[in-house]
This record gives sequence, C-alpha cells and structure tokens, in this order.
Amino acid sequence: MRLTGLSAFPITPADPEGRVDLPALRRLVARLREAGVDSIGLLGSTGSYPYLTRDERRRALEAALDEVGDWAPVLVGVGALRTDEAVRLAQDARAAGAAAGLLAAVSYTPLTDDEVFAHVATVARESGLPLCLYDNPSTTHFRFGPELIGRLSRLPGIVAVKSPGQEPQAVAGHLAGLRTVVPPGFSLGYSGDWTTTEALIAGADAWYSVVAGLFPQVAVDIVRAVQRGDAAEARRLDARLAPLWTLFREHSSLRVMYACANLLDLCRAAPPRPILPLGEEAQGRVAEVIRALDLR
Amino acid sequence: MRLTGLSAFPITPADPEGRVDLPALRRLVARLREAGVDSIGLLGSTGSYPYLTRDERRRALEAALDEVGDWAPVLVGVGALRTDEAVRLAQDARAAGAAAGLLAAVSYTPLTDDEVFAHVATVARESGLPLCLYDNPSTTHFRFGPELIGRLSRLPGIVAVKSPGQEPQAVAGHLAGLRTVVPPGFSLGYSGDWTTTEALIAGADAWYSVVAGLFPQVAVDIVRAVQRGDAAEARRLDARLAPLWTLFREHSSLRVMYACANLLDLCRAAPPRPILPLGEEAQGRVAEVIRALDLR
Repeated sequence: MRLTGLSAFPITPADPEGRVDLPALRRLVARLREAGVDSIGLLGSTGSYPYLTRDERRRALEAALDEVGDWAPVLVGVGALRTDEAVRLAQDARAAGAAAGLLAAVSYTPLTDDEVFAHVATVARESGLPLCLYDNPSTTHFRFGPELIGRLSRLPGIVAVKSPGQEPQAVAGHLAGLRTVVPPGFSLGYSGDWTTTEALIAGADAWYSVVAGLFPQVAVDIVRAVQRGDAAEARRLDARLAPLWTLFREHSSLRVMYACANLLDLCRAAPPRPILPLGEEAQGRVAEVIRALDLR
Repeated sequence: MRLTGLSAFPITPADPEGRVDLPALRRLVARLREAGVDSIGLLGSTGSYPYLTRDERRRALEAALDEVGDWAPVLVGVGALRTDEAVRLAQDARAAGAAAGLLAAVSYTPLTDDEVFAHVATVARESGLPLCLYDNPSTTHFRFGPELIGRLSRLPGIVAVKSPGQEPQAVAGHLAGLRTVVPPGFSLGYSGDWTTTEALIAGADAWYSVVAGLFPQVAVDIVRAVQRGDAAEARRLDARLAPLWTLFREHSSLRVMYACANLLDLCRAAPPRPILPLGEEAQGRVAEVIRALDLR
C-alpha cells in the first residue's frame, strides 16, 4: 500500500463521557466515500484519539471500516503514551482490517531520538501493521528530524511520514531533503491544510487533510487540479478557502471542525473536555464562512 | 494545610507492564520519613503518573499513605488528559486520605487559558480535594501565566502553585510578581532542583524536589539552612551538588533518579517505555557522582 493523494481526517463525535456516536461517525465517513477521497485518516489528532479508550477506538474503527467497505484504505491513529499500549492499539487495528497505522511520538517526559526509534520499531514489529510516522510537534512536542526519519524508513513496515505544514518558500527544500534520506517509494505527505496545496505542487505524495474530513469536495478539487498539472487552478481553489484557514490558525482546525459539524447538523458533539467548544462569537464567524464559501 | 519547606518526589518503581512495585515504593517512602521531609509528592512527573492506570495510581497512593502514617502530608499527582478522568483521580485521592492533589495541565491539543481554568475549577469542585497547580511547561507545554494563576488562586480549594525553575537573577522578580496576584497565605513553590536554593533564599514557600525523593538528607540540609537564615551555608551545600545538577540537565532528573535507585539497590526498575534507562556510559557517570558526593 502506498499512501497518495487526499487522506481525509474526520472528527470522532462522542458524548461527554467519551462514548463514540457511531451513527454520526458513519454519516461523516459516508460523505468521504461519496466524494471519492483517496484514503481516510480515522482517529487522527482531529479525531481526538488520545482522549478515547482502547475500547472506544476499536468501536470507532470497526464502524468506519464497515461503512467504508473496500473502496478506500483506512489508516488509523494508534499512538499512545506507553509503548505497550501503542502495540495493543496497532494489533487491534490490524485485526480489524485497517490498512495502516498512524503513529505519533506521544510524550509527557520529553523523548530522545533513540527512544522514539525503539518505540516505533517495537510497535511495527509486534503488530505487523504498516505504519505512517506522524510528525506532529504542535501536539507531541517531539520533532522527527531527517536523520531519524531516514533510520525509521528503512525498517520493515514503515511506509510513510506525515510531516507538519511548511512555509510555502520552504516546502520544496523540505521535501527534497527527506527524499535523500528515505528509500524510493516511501510516501512523503503533509498536514497543515493552509500550506498543503504548495506541498502537493512541489511533489508531495499525500495531503493529510482536516478540512477534507468534513468538506471533502473542496479538497478533492484541489488535489485533482494538482494531479492534472493545473497548479493555477489548485492555487485559486486554495485561495478561495483563505477565510477558513484564518479560522483554523486562530482557533485550531479541531475546534472549528466541531463547530462546523454541529452547525451542519451532522452531529451534536463537543470536543473532549478540557477542550471547549468555540464561544458564540467565534461560532458566528464560522457560520458566516460556511455560508460565504458555500461549504456543505 | 499550607505547603511549605521541602516536598520530596520519589520515582514510582513499576514492572514493564506498569504494575507498581509496592515494597520498593514503601522503601523509598520510609527513607523520606526518616529524613524528616515536610511533605511527600507522590506520583509527580518523576513518579511517572501519566504512564500509570487509575488502579495502579490508587494502589501506589494507598501503600504510601499507609507507610507515611500521620507524620507528613502526602500530595499526589491527579493530572490526566481528560477532565472527567482527572476528577475521578482526585476523588480517589481524597477518599484515600491524600492531603492535596497536584494538577498539571496535561494536554495533547494545545489548551487555552479558559480551558485550563474550567478544567481546574471542575476538578476542585467535583472532588473537594485541595489542589496545588502544577505548572510544568516542559512536559505539558502549557504555561500558567500570572493572570491565570491569580484567577485560579481565588477559587475555593486552590492552595498552591508549583512553578518551574527560574534563572537565579529572575526568581525574586518572578516570586514578587506572583505575590501581587494571589491571596495572602497562598503557597508559592518551585521545582527544578538546580535553581531552587536561590528561590528559597528569595522567599519561596516550598521546594518541590526530585533529588529529595531519593536522597532526602542533602535537600533537608539546604532547606533547614535557609530556614535558619544561613544563605551562605545553603549555597555551599547546593554548589557541592553541581555534578548531580549537570547530570539532571543533561539526561533529565527522572532518568538519573532511576539509575541512582537501581545502583543503590533500592529497586530493580526501569522508567516506563518509551522512556529508556540511561546507557552504560551515562550510568558510569552517575555511579561516579554518587561516590564522589557520598550520596546514600
């Protein structure tokens, strides 16, 4: 399996006690199927994986896989603070039929490169699940450097890296730097929705997208424009979404996506506490942007 | 209860599956009692609280309280990623008889001040456990600013703050800044062992100490010197420990304390994975420092 194109990361609607609302999750996943995204990133950071128990993560995965069927691979967050817990989550994911796991370097005590190497190697070896390295320093406070990515990319079962968004003028260099340290065919992808159009134009393999988890069509249109070589059209579609990117940067994409999903009546769910829903004024701005951009 | 003087933070020895070694924990706690520390900080960051289940945290607390008896208050880490989980941990701690809870702003999705305020207020209200705010940006990546500390210090049950270590030239100003925002009697304390002697001399109420969790006597001597007004002697005792502080800064106090506890045959335990024990060369340096400083 090679991760390419658009990977859509939905929220995981749950009640205040952390029980996943499976019908609402199925509704979100069905939208992704209908829009034809290339893969689904279940239980990513936007899917609030670290806030859910192992049982709830398994319930969510099984429902999503059932809804998806065969039409697209599902990758699933298997990160955890403890190595043994991440192993169990990856084993669960493989048993359920996920195509790959997304493994972040979740930390409390700051970790060294050698510790993260051993953590990832153990999860890959003990689970047999193909893994995408999840480099998300804004949540884990660990940064995968090129040297570590190079070492890990040579382990059996490590197939991809999801890197954080880069500045437009830096992304081509970042991508070229990673290409020199990973084997051919290793997938290099990016998150940070407001930066990823330039990453795709620069030759990135995949866009790990928060907006696509709820509004897949606008993201599919950008990816397809890049794929047919129409960078100008991709940039035009991306520029049109600028008001949404402003909200993402200001309030985090997770909080904005919860507000959108509720405003669209796709679910009645708040983020897991201590994360709070957006206040009324911010929700008003979100509603305006949804209307102005005709998001649906 | 007012937190003053020396609060000693032991490691929590556990097996690779995360089951706490209660006899070893009791041995560590008994050393603290014999040295006459002013309070015990169980399941702090050095006690690897976020890596242990609720059941194991309760087992550790009950054993420690039984070992401590009436001679000193026990404060205990009740932090968790989810608010409801932190509430349950604080309720457990109160039911078991802990004097106070230590509540860090554990985060994955970065939190706002309003979110942390609501989190702390909920835990205090739902548990009835007195709380010490645990400002530990190096692990939680959330920083409690003076404005937030001021707001929280006015809530019933919020009794103290444990601030991160400050540069020697900055600590008096930091302390004075906090005094202006908290009510009289609110306890202001510091962690970061290599910085705390100056904090105590500047008038801090408490030292939350990692070294005291294993080598209580050297820390008791520093605190008592400050308390009797002998700053010169406190500084001399602190300067003598410089080789240990170097190791703490280089490898983290947690990893060094595990190495020390094993070298002293107080337990056979490694930190929870993915955290790795120190390598051979670093362990050799730790052994040398233990010998040179006659730590026991």
